[in-house]
Amino acid sequence: MVTVSDAEHIIQQQVSAYGVEQVPFEQALGRVLAQDLRTDRPLPPYDRVTMDGIAFRFCDFARGTRTFQIMGTQAAGDAPLEITQENACMEIMTGAALPASVDTVVRYEDLEIENGVATVLVEQVRKGQNVHRQGQDKQQNEVVALANQLVTPALVGMAAAVGATELPVKKLPKVVVISTGDELVEVHQTPAPFQIRRSNSYLVKAALQAYQVEPDLLHLPDDLATTKDQLQRCLAQYEVILLSGGISMGKFDYVPQVLEELQVQKLFQKVRQKPGKPFWFGRHGNGALVFALPGNPVSTFLCLNRYFLPWLHASVGLPTKQEVFAALATDFRFPPDLTYFLQVRLQYSDQGQLLATPLEGNGSGDFSNLVEADAFLELPQERDRFEKGEVLRVWPFKTIW
Amino acid sequence: MVTVSDAEHIIQQQVSAYGVEQVPFEQALGRVLAQDLRTDRPLPPYDRVTMDGIAFRFCDFARGTRTFQIMGTQAAGDAPLEITQENACMEIMTGAALPASVDTVVRYEDLEIENGVATVLVEQVRKGQNVHRQGQDKQQNEVVALANQLVTPALVGMAAAVGATELPVKKLPKVVVISTGDELVEVHQTPAPFQIRRSNSYLVKAALQAYQVEPDLLHLPDDLATTKDQLQRCLAQYEVILLSGGISMGKFDYVPQVLEELQVQKLFQKVRQKPGKPFWFGRHGNGALVFALPGNPVSTFLCLNRYFLPWLHASVGLPTKQEVFAALATDFRFPPDLTYFLQVRLQYSDQGQLLATPLEGNGSGDFSNLVEADAFLELPQERDRFEKGEVLRVWPFKTIW
Repeated sequence: MVTVSDAEHIIQQQVSAYGVEQVPFEQALGRVLAQDLRTDRPLPPYDRVTMDGIAFRFCDFARGTRTFQIMGTQAAGDAPLEITQENACMEIMTGAALPASVDTVVRYEDLEIENGVATVLVEQVRKGQNVHRQGQDKQQNEVVALANQLVTPALVGMAAAVGATELPVKKLPKVVVISTGDELVEVHQTPAPFQIRRSNSYLVKAALQAYQVEPDLLHLPDDLATTKDQLQRCLAQYEVILLSGGISMGKFDYVPQVLEELQVQKLFQKVRQKPGKPFWFGRHGNGALVFALPGNPVSTFLCLNRYFLPWLHASVGLPTKQEVFAALATDFRFPPDLTYFLQVRLQYSDQGQLLATPLEGNGSGDFSNLVEADAFLELPQERDRFEKGEVLRVWPFKTIW
Repeated sequence: MVTVSDAEHIIQQQVSAYGVEQVPFEQALGRVLAQDLRTDRPLPPYDRVTMDGIAFRFCDFARGTRTFQIMGTQAAGDAPLEITQENACMEIMTGAALPASVDTVVRYEDLEIENGVATVLVEQVRKGQNVHRQGQDKQQNEVVALANQLVTPALVGMAAAVGATELPVKKLPKVVVISTGDELVEVHQTPAPFQIRRSNSYLVKAALQAYQVEPDLLHLPDDLATTKDQLQRCLAQYEVILLSGGISMGKFDYVPQVLEELQVQKLFQKVRQKPGKPFWFGRHGNGALVFALPGNPVSTFLCLNRYFLPWLHASVGLPTKQEVFAALATDFRFPPDLTYFLQVRLQYSDQGQLLATPLEGNGSGDFSNLVEADAFLELPQERDRFEKGEVLRVWPFKTIW
């Protein structure tokens, strides 16, 4: 039996890397960028007009000129017009490339235009105004997004802007999610009075979808030979095996025995925690990792969030996950010498502080609570009593809308 | 010109509902549940054994019996065995249905088993122990998930458990994202020195993907007839039109004029904010809504997060979005009489309070900042100076890993 922090440490020592692949930029959302993204041109790529109006030479204005002959109109996307005479201007639109022969833009709101002549109505005109200078945000070949970050909508937009039709992203491990237990039937089936439906695999699969991981699903009956055959095949075919169930003291809990027969080195068995105490973790010689999680859905989900997802996070090269803390909204007692993961609802106080309200229901095993909970609050093993207002680490698992 | 809160209010008055559809439960993640989800059987559906060990009648133990004849083994998924004599037991596994003839389970750790006889080694045995009673969590036909909430991994797992192979979810509006401007070329093209690539549409499309909305994309040239034809078609075909660009004072900014010609009633034009001041919002007689956003990517993204997504949130029936607040990490000044949306990075203090650190770069229009930012901090219009430590409303836009 190991502590929560031992378990975390042992798992983090098994952080791997799965290589890099190119994907179309439109499909990269939620993946991890594998190389720095750089500009192909300066940003902006030209002196970009930021207001609709007229463009002229500031030296004309400085000499006292207030009426300018309009020589033409340059829309965004037009090749630059040029001014070749004094006291002349062009009408010019937001987004257009400022021609080299002019340097200053006055917006329509500050003009009067009649008979092809524009009159400037304001005295405060600054040389270069209303122009976003070439390269002002970024130079050519400058980094606009560092490697090892999540591809966000803004990064997708930036990829489009710099012409990166494909993005190099970290490969994700090949994962199989395996359920065990002869009491389980398929979701569309009507269970006998002593059976239940298979739900854990779908819970895990859905949780992995947020990370773009698309696991295969497999169900194993409580049969030694089948369990061994199938686990052997999976160890060769997948980089990660996420098992649920079959790891307790039961006569048909073949999983630990079979894994050891298949040369999976046990790195720990049992964690000093509730829920999720029977958690078994090991590594095959070929590098495949086995996270054998307890079969109770709440235990499965806790171990997934507390151990597997941080491992995945590190294995795709993301920087250490930011720790999240919340203040306990009510007193809470938990006497056993275990770390307790309390299901909580989270909300922000108007001071921007996260508050965690316990959702106890029927204790740590109550799956129906999990639908209402936002996070697990981690109550350290060393203590029994936790007081209202205390700030503790929290593991949020809900997508934020 | 309207204030930020006026704009918000006017948009929220246009909240719509788009009906309900059935989807396979495995595809419902991230959608909004349209009806309460109920159990088909009690939870647990039977008296469920929670430890591997033996089951016997507590009355035998109370009479002093400590050794029990083992009559057989019942695995999880087996039909219940029954005990018909005194001082007898069965071996029984976690997940099995407790037979009616027994009531108490003692785990293997507290037993000695030899020659078909189990001896209980502990004195503390409680009637009914290690059994999760039928219906203890939920009764049959009891609600396990209320309508109008996001389908999370836990909810997917619960749907599997109660046999809901399909879930009723809120339909999403049909959305088209339209870019405008002759300066824009496709992402795979090499722009002329006075052109840029189309990036806004991809930014918007990626932001909507998090909400499962899959918009169509369309680009309009700066041409009056085409703009009118295409917008007319879109008003008939889509429930929401998200435009970017074409709404300023420019000669080729046909959008507001064409929309009014097509009987789209303008509900506001221009918001007292930076970025995103030119924002135009209207409604067609057939109910189609037009969010015409300014063409600068930062303006587009701000308006999307501050106005469109809260509207979408309400239109799929989710309860009002929880307000998020953060403390400003440095002093900040913004003198103009506008609400300023400052790009910030967020992090939690070890007191669980969100801290917002400004990312100013080259001001509100710097698209390259957006890749690094986590949120917009809303600085109210009425004030110029904002002090370190002040708590203000924040609009986060990053997916949390």
